[in-house]
Amino acid sequence: MKILEKLSAYNIELPPVPKAAGLYKTVLVQDRIAYFSGHLPIRKDGTLITGKVNLDLTLKEAVLAARQVGLNILASLQYELGDLERIEKLVKLLGMVNAESDFTDHPTVMNGCSQLFLDIFGNESGVGVRSVYGVSGLPLNATVEVEGAFFLKK
Amino acid sequence: MKILEKLSAYNIELPPVPKAAGLYKTVLVQDRIAYFSGHLPIRKDGTLITGKVNLDLTLKEAVLAARQVGLNILASLQYELGDLERIEKLVKLLGMVNAESDFTDHPTVMNGCSQLFLDIFGNESGVGVRSVYGVSGLPLNATVEVEGAFFLKK
Amino acid sequence: MKILEKLSAYNIELPPVPKAAGLYKTVLVQDRIAYFSGHLPIRKDGTLITGKVNLDLTLKEAVLAARQVGLNILASLQYELGDLERIEKLVKLLGMVNAESDFTDHPTVMNGCSQLFLDIFGNESGVGVRSVYGVSGLPLNATVEVEGAFFLKK
Repeated sequence: MKILEKLSAYNIELPPVPKAAGLYKTVLVQDRIAYFSGHLPIRKDGTLITGKVNLDLTLKEAVLAARQVGLNILASLQYELGDLERIEKLVKLLGMVNAESDFTDHPTVMNGCSQLFLDIFGNESGVGVRSVYGVSGLPLNATVEVEGAFFLKK
Repeated sequence: MKILEKLSAYNIELPPVPKAAGLYKTVLVQDRIAYFSGHLPIRKDGTLITGKVNLDLTLKEAVLAARQVGLNILASLQYELGDLERIEKLVKLLGMVNAESDFTDHPTVMNGCSQLFLDIFGNESGVGVRSVYGVSGLPLNATVEVEGAFFLKK
Repeated sequence: MKILEKLSAYNIELPPVPKAAGLYKTVLVQDRIAYFSGHLPIRKDGTLITGKVNLDLTLKEAVLAARQVGLNILASLQYELGDLERIEKLVKLLGMVNAESDFTDHPTVMNGCSQLFLDIFGNESGVGVRSVYGVSGLPLNATVEVEGAFFLKK
């Protein structure tokens, strides 16, 4: 199944393409690697999912925030690559969770993003290496930020 | 000297191979680069070294935690690559230390991991670029997390 | 215009080459990618810009700290590459800002570094992907740390 068909099958509509704040690119392709900038959980209506896990929002809401970051990453990639079919596989994800010092379930939050890529790209192509940790703060008080890299087809 | 002989000479026994939590790979090889996920300081008996430096454990204990992360990375690489001799050199390490906002000696903690790789791979191959910083929290309250990449022989 | 001429035109004098603390390299080149370690805002006189944004120093001072990190990165690259003209373009930057949990303007801080690279390398070569976030602490209580990678000419 094509990726756009999968998105449709999962009833997923990509959010608007995130705008780069000017001094960076959202995606940079070099030698078959598509590096993408730290993306935030922007909703379809342009608003941002903000706040710290377990303080301002629940774990479940934070998981959805991480998934929303993934959707923004897909929107950026589709725009910059022209076609998501150019992606061969996920290489790596680095996830930052906005959380106080007593929060320890960052992997569950990050799974919101990882599960999306697994669903869309499948077992062979949607699973890469990953790191996730808690940070003292994120731009605009976003709940999650994810950056990483995909490998492209020849 | 072969790497396994060095491990033996240093009296190092690798811990059990860390299990990936399912939505990521511990190691991904692409074009001679072996990317590895954020690893945690899991002891040989399967328990995790937890807590914040200078609060729950001493600096010296945190250095040993970082070294333990390094051993877990080696265990993953040996399992995924089949043979640690395939490694040509370390490329980069990214280290996250679980610490409160008044802690400033993250490099000393990280040296526990860096020194291990220097001992095992030598001056030519065991020293790459590195970043280290304090985070508000880590998965399962681990003391240190390290991710990075090695370059493989042809 | 050559990069050294641009530095001169902007009246920029590079700080002394930062010393690696021994267990890592400041720069590592592999296959046309120059990876650089996390750099700190060391002034020309060798002292470090320290403290947390909005607590120990102002936002404006933190922006200058990020710019100072960029100058240290350039000093390392010039030393390790021999010639900054070998750089084809910036690939990526990862920025860590030393800040309490209520700070949310990490992008403005990071722009201090990004603007420098844009000025020196231009629109085509000085803009890569980027991530930035707040951390609970940095080595030696530095205000900003930046690591990343440049792509080199053939």
